Amino acid sequence: MGGSFAAALRRRNLATSITGYDVDPAVGARGVRMGLLDAAAPDCEQAARQADLVVLAAPVGAMPGLLSEIAGALGPTAIATDLGSTKVDVVSAARRALGPAFARFVPAHPIAGGEQPGLERADPNLFEGCTVVIAPTSETRADVAARVEQLWRSCGAHVVRMDADEHDRMLASVSHLPHVLAFALVAHIAGQPDAQRKLALAGPGFRDSTRIAASSPAMWRDIALANRDAIGQELRALIAVLQRVDQALSAGDPRILQELFELASRARRQMDGRGDGA
Amino acid sequence: MGGSFAAALRRRNLATSITGYDVDPAVGARGVRMGLLDAAAPDCEQAARQADLVVLAAPVGAMPGLLSEIAGALGPTAIATDLGSTKVDVVSAARRALGPAFARFVPAHPIAGGEQPGLERADPNLFEGCTVVIAPTSETRADVAARVEQLWRSCGAHVVRMDADEHDRMLASVSHLPHVLAFALVAHIAGQPDAQRKLALAGPGFRDSTRIAASSPAMWRDIALANRDAIGQELRALIAVLQRVDQALSAGDPRILQELFELASRARRQMDGRGDGA
Repeated sequence: MGGSFAAALRRRNLATSITGYDVDPAVGARGVRMGLLDAAAPDCEQAARQADLVVLAAPVGAMPGLLSEIAGALGPTAIATDLGSTKVDVVSAARRALGPAFARFVPAHPIAGGEQPGLERADPNLFEGCTVVIAPTSETRADVAARVEQLWRSCGAHVVRMDADEHDRMLASVSHLPHVLAFALVAHIAGQPDAQRKLALAGPGFRDSTRIAASSPAMWRDIALANRDAIGQELRALIAVLQRVDQALSAGDPRILQELFELASRARRQMDGRGDGA
Repeated sequence: MGGSFAAALRRRNLATSITGYDVDPAVGARGVRMGLLDAAAPDCEQAARQADLVVLAAPVGAMPGLLSEIAGALGPTAIATDLGSTKVDVVSAARRALGPAFARFVPAHPIAGGEQPGLERADPNLFEGCTVVIAPTSETRADVAARVEQLWRSCGAHVVRMDADEHDRMLASVSHLPHVLAFALVAHIAGQPDAQRKLALAGPGFRDSTRIAASSPAMWRDIALANRDAIGQELRALIAVLQRVDQALSAGDPRILQELFELASRARRQMDGRGDGA
């Protein structure tokens, strides 16, 4: 997603120069060759030095380390932001690491696709029409938050502000829980002796519903742990629903199934702007 | 799916005349206006009379009734088949209803998309490259099974033969369980007081993973009940996986999460022909 953000800034002439850093030096070099980056820095600190804007695009588990590394390099007017999928942990790591510069850190989360990482898939239009949550704290400077918000709007995104707490609770429902479920479903099937034969029979419904299970395991392990209280709560509530389904199946009770499926189908069709018909 | 099959047969000149019947007479009339059907019959029996091939495209819960209605109308050489998502129940209903004509009934299941029903979405190429399971019994005439198999191949499908039992056990894993899960997930969220705000934050991952929750509640209620033993078994095994995830979250244990997510991600990427990279 860092690559797509660089591409989006470049396409819209929103940055005069972009310096990248990746733990794998080959990635930075490739970014330069592809024209996504003007330069690749040998470490995080040097990438941040002299930057007007520092964007942390890394698994949330890596954020505390990255924030410590950039802390000393941030210029007196530099703005920092992130693209992490959880916000409470990132906010608290940033507060610890950045000291007074925490006022110039804008926690952000672009809710865009991207289970397939890699610069080759960097898409300058990834954020067109996507929702970006920004979660400034009471300590965040208003003008700094406004600049980051404007940057996202310039990339075509719809910006929503909320507290980090609220973000994590909401995303636990509509992002983290679905990912955990998709991973669990595919792992459950893949662990069976006849997994290959079964998966060969999987249709487009299975493919769609488990696409997110191809996401990065390390990234999602970090997200799951970073937001484990909220995700655990969602997960236990969902298990209770599944147990009700199991009981309805055992009892051969059509009513409970019908009600549950109707509630879901209606809500899901509404998301696509379809009505109650069919 | 009946509309798509009619369209596929028509496009490939595999039927000289197609007569349709739907519980809603308006649907049959629309099929004629659209040119998908040559005629709409006023009831199921009349649709089946004089047909060389009778195709039952209905929720599996409606199959016993439909099979009884066509039983008396089937000509001495007519072939019957279905497009139902479960096979054990359809086979047993057909055996009961059809008498000696059961030898000319070929249980079939095209594993194609189609959570959005309606003749308007009938797609003559829906079955290109899709897998169709046919589940002839020991009583099914070999020449009849071969003809139905050939028909599906002519529509571009890849045909797999297996027992009805095995079909239902396999599909419980890779189709019925994912549908139940998607319904449960969306119902769980839709039932919360802040559902609308949460769903407004849902990204493409959520949309993909819950697309099948927009499927027909009645159709899936029928499927769930028709295959409830196998689905219940799958569901309880999945609940056990989710409980392990919940414990790992409570304990803050990265190892279990990492292993589970890696198993899933590897298996899912393999389905798309992607390797372990990324």
